Amino acid sequence: MRAIHLDGSAVRVIEAPPPEPEPGSARVRVTLAGVCNTDLELVKGYLGFRGVLGHEFVGVVDDGPEHWRGRRVVGEINFACGRCATCARGLPRHCPARRVMGIQGADGAFAEWVQVPVGNLHAVPDDVADECAVFTEPLAAAFEILEQVELVPGTRCLVLGDGKLGLLVAQVLQDAGARVLAVGRHPDKLAILARRGIETRLAEDWTPEPTPLVVEATGRAPGFRAAVAATEPRGTLVLKSTVAEQPRVDLAPLVIHEIRVLGSRCGPFPPALRALVEARVEVRALVTDRVPLARGAEALERAAAPGAIKVLIETR
Amino acid sequence: MRAIHLDGSAVRVIEAPPPEPEPGSARVRVTLAGVCNTDLELVKGYLGFRGVLGHEFVGVVDDGPEHWRGRRVVGEINFACGRCATCARGLPRHCPARRVMGIQGADGAFAEWVQVPVGNLHAVPDDVADECAVFTEPLAAAFEILEQVELVPGTRCLVLGDGKLGLLVAQVLQDAGARVLAVGRHPDKLAILARRGIETRLAEDWTPEPTPLVVEATGRAPGFRAAVAATEPRGTLVLKSTVAEQPRVDLAPLVIHEIRVLGSRCGPFPPALRALVEARVEVRALVTDRVPLARGAEALERAAAPGAIKVLIETR
Repeated sequence: MRAIHLDGSAVRVIEAPPPEPEPGSARVRVTLAGVCNTDLELVKGYLGFRGVLGHEFVGVVDDGPEHWRGRRVVGEINFACGRCATCARGLPRHCPARRVMGIQGADGAFAEWVQVPVGNLHAVPDDVADECAVFTEPLAAAFEILEQVELVPGTRCLVLGDGKLGLLVAQVLQDAGARVLAVGRHPDKLAILARRGIETRLAEDWTPEPTPLVVEATGRAPGFRAAVAATEPRGTLVLKSTVAEQPRVDLAPLVIHEIRVLGSRCGPFPPALRALVEARVEVRALVTDRVPLARGAEALERAAAPGAIKVLIETR
Repeated sequence: MRAIHLDGSAVRVIEAPPPEPEPGSARVRVTLAGVCNTDLELVKGYLGFRGVLGHEFVGVVDDGPEHWRGRRVVGEINFACGRCATCARGLPRHCPARRVMGIQGADGAFAEWVQVPVGNLHAVPDDVADECAVFTEPLAAAFEILEQVELVPGTRCLVLGDGKLGLLVAQVLQDAGARVLAVGRHPDKLAILARRGIETRLAEDWTPEPTPLVVEATGRAPGFRAAVAATEPRGTLVLKSTVAEQPRVDLAPLVIHEIRVLGSRCGPFPPALRALVEARVEVRALVTDRVPLARGAEALERAAAPGAIKVLIETR
């Protein structure tokens, strides 16, 4: 099969044997896969991953337990051991022995086939098109915030960053009843939110004002500093991006204003799928490119280009 | 009156007129004052404060409302406006217009007299000696953690740093039912905790292990990094020091492990006074020096010296 392989900083389309599903796993024929910022960070050296990239996908099970065969699925990306103290705490996404699809110790979905533990699979409802279902994983990451924060409807929220994740987070918070202000650098990206009734502002026209809930989704040091400056005393700042960069951070404002900083990573798939079924989140408008698997390296280049939002990889 | 005055980085004992209490304020004849790390940071340039230093004190009201005259008191250090939205939220300690005794916009307690709004005063119970009552303010800062974290008895807690604040925090957490491990660099300081039944470890003999609640009280970049490394997934890291230093911070572990970081500053006086009445926290053993006000600059030098814990200034 064809697969997009990372080795050091070299991204290449390779020919590899399709996975033979282990017991408890299914083999999924990938239909569409999405490029995430984490993929771009991995290429820059983040985590030192070597293997097939990709962790956002939709596909059809073609080998594995009878019950799953032929079903259209998406899959959670953390492959937990299921036996350790962290798994017993109900936190399989934090299992210290976990492998993570296309990120750490497990081949990913930028390939014709991918292997996924059946416990990680979620059936995709018929009325969610592939090009929407492929957003389930990043949308779940946005929903993770609602697992971590008790959001009182009407709460003012600030979302910094109009990239892939910022656009999803702003919509999820607005849908949950927050009054969202989204700040970014791209009028065309912010326009997607404005069409959903979300207040938007270009970063150059914005100055930080005390806000109870701030989500940092720029993944950059100036974004972090602006996020701290915009969080009100005893307010909450959610960090939603993993980056290779290590900014110099003035920790004093966190202490002085007793700010609560919440790291936030992967989230629950069911509310994300439900939001897609009910069309409560606009995702199609985020697709700026579709690239066939055979031209895989190009997909990553295009995803890194200015103006790009979500690049999809067509694997069949 | 005599007072220890900071101007730029120059610390001098000056002669100044005693404060004339404004309406709503009391004048306190200071008995004892304590040197805090924040004082040492202020001398290094933190916040650019200019004025009389000192915010930990015990004294006797000698001018002001009838009700308070002659009473032995300690005082909260944040002088709030009482009229803004933050004060209305019940967060006077975060009032954006606040002045802070000896730190920001208000003269402090390293002086024969200090002026304090009566709303900030707390009467000291008779059975708490002056040399214990002077610890009320930093002890309240330790109790602040219990306001921010729901501490389940038996929870494993790690306190990093065996300075003034670390020694109080470790005791407060242990007293609240936590199983505390205190890590520091000073055998004699850790011994104070060991005598209270708290498990201690020298930093050189310690490696980070996943812990649900970690308190960073070193105020140094390596301490912050160790604290992050020691916080378990979905665990809580409390930042308890304000420092001028701006460390390079790898934010990725906060996101990957979904760590909750809580900045923590000033706290409630009543539980601190109660703990002193009930002798649930050892504070006398923390006093390493007593210096008369007339030799004030020396007090700050001694507080900065290796081995020092709490230096008290005798103002009468």
